[in-house]
Amino acid sequence: MGRIKLTVSYDGRSFCGFQEQKNGISIQGKLQGALKAVYDRDIKVTASGRTDAGVSAKGQVVHFDGDDRVPMDKLPIVLNRYLPKEISVVKAQKVSDKFNARFSAKKKTYVYRIYNAKTANPLDPFCSFFPGKIDIDKMKEGAKLLIGEHDFKCFMASGSNIKDTVRIIYDAKVVKKQNIISIKICGNGFLYNMVRIIAGTLLYVGLGKISPNDITDIIEKRDRKKAGKTLPPNGLLLEKVVY
Amino acid sequence: MGRIKLTVSYDGRSFCGFQEQKNGISIQGKLQGALKAVYDRDIKVTASGRTDAGVSAKGQVVHFDGDDRVPMDKLPIVLNRYLPKEISVVKAQKVSDKFNARFSAKKKTYVYRIYNAKTANPLDPFCSFFPGKIDIDKMKEGAKLLIGEHDFKCFMASGSNIKDTVRIIYDAKVVKKQNIISIKICGNGFLYNMVRIIAGTLLYVGLGKISPNDITDIIEKRDRKKAGKTLPPNGLLLEKVVY
Repeated sequence: MGRIKLTVSYDGRSFCGFQEQKNGISIQGKLQGALKAVYDRDIKVTASGRTDAGVSAKGQVVHFDGDDRVPMDKLPIVLNRYLPKEISVVKAQKVSDKFNARFSAKKKTYVYRIYNAKTANPLDPFCSFFPGKIDIDKMKEGAKLLIGEHDFKCFMASGSNIKDTVRIIYDAKVVKKQNIISIKICGNGFLYNMVRIIAGTLLYVGLGKISPNDITDIIEKRDRKKAGKTLPPNGLLLEKVVY
Repeated sequence: MGRIKLTVSYDGRSFCGFQEQKNGISIQGKLQGALKAVYDRDIKVTASGRTDAGVSAKGQVVHFDGDDRVPMDKLPIVLNRYLPKEISVVKAQKVSDKFNARFSAKKKTYVYRIYNAKTANPLDPFCSFFPGKIDIDKMKEGAKLLIGEHDFKCFMASGSNIKDTVRIIYDAKVVKKQNIISIKICGNGFLYNMVRIIAGTLLYVGLGKISPNDITDIIEKRDRKKAGKTLPPNGLLLEKVVY
């Protein structure tokens, strides 16, 4: 027996989310199905965090307790044989039994991508399409004000029962490359829908609906209603988790 | 009345191909449905060529006979309201009544993309995954030998009843960028499955199964069996059509 850490990429658009659910196909369910096929027993995986329905990942991290029957360099290839094309295990590593994909995570980076042009691009499905005129410099200015340790209750979807809404954002950047605006946020943890609400709020800044400085005010007021809309899940990507 | 040229992008992976078919959802059917919604009558579109089931396009071109009710700069936006997210009209232009998307086409460029790494990348679904070791320089060498006017019967899928199998390839390039090998081919026209068979043959060259110079021999022998396998459709993209 020994603890194993997997790095997993997935196109989450057709799944009910990371977490197993009674009605719906989940990333967790598919991973556990592949592990059962390889290790001949039920194995539970623990992820760095649950991604919502429709959200994708480049570097999601999970752990499970396995054994030595497959060497680490072969394990991704073997597991991928039992996974649909939307999920790919890209790396497997032995880790200490103290490692926990969720509780040992120090930093997570999410990217929200907006395709900003007159017409949508079906060849880049991991973007949310927005045709209006967007002021990138204002978005960059607004993003900077997110950095730091704050109570981010304003960016938490209603319905979440989390009590401690203080998080640290280490970095928040807005970059435009051709027609794609990327909002890249690195933090120690994120509240329910937090990145999609931040993306919606920065979009409001880019559209001139609110000013960059309003971001500070929105955070201080701790009121979800002052922030922007929750943008659609397909534009969101869990880029990496640092331990 | 007047002839209109549309440039269309699509993610073809869930369609039965460009051409309308009794059993299956086609790009043509969806475009004609959108045109009917806008012009209140049945309208037939003619494409530069039919793309097969699962093949995508960045710049497919079609023409139809419409009228002035929607200005050309608005037409893509209006049509896209009636199209699924997998299809996007990116440009509309008035053209002469002599313009024919199929017969006026001078050059077409296709790109075949191979994702070459140990594990697949679900975030780039427009690639065919191939994990083996590939010699790019040999592929480049082989690609050069495709250029020119040749009888390309060797690269035509069996079952096609085309008689004249002579085509001109103006350019054929192989480029590797990170894990993606792109095979870019520009020609005056292509036979059934031609680009996917060429990609399969160049892959054989890259794997060392055949030598670059065998390409010339395969073309001369006019024998489909000497060429490589037909690679899967999702790696193929109709990039642009020149008139």
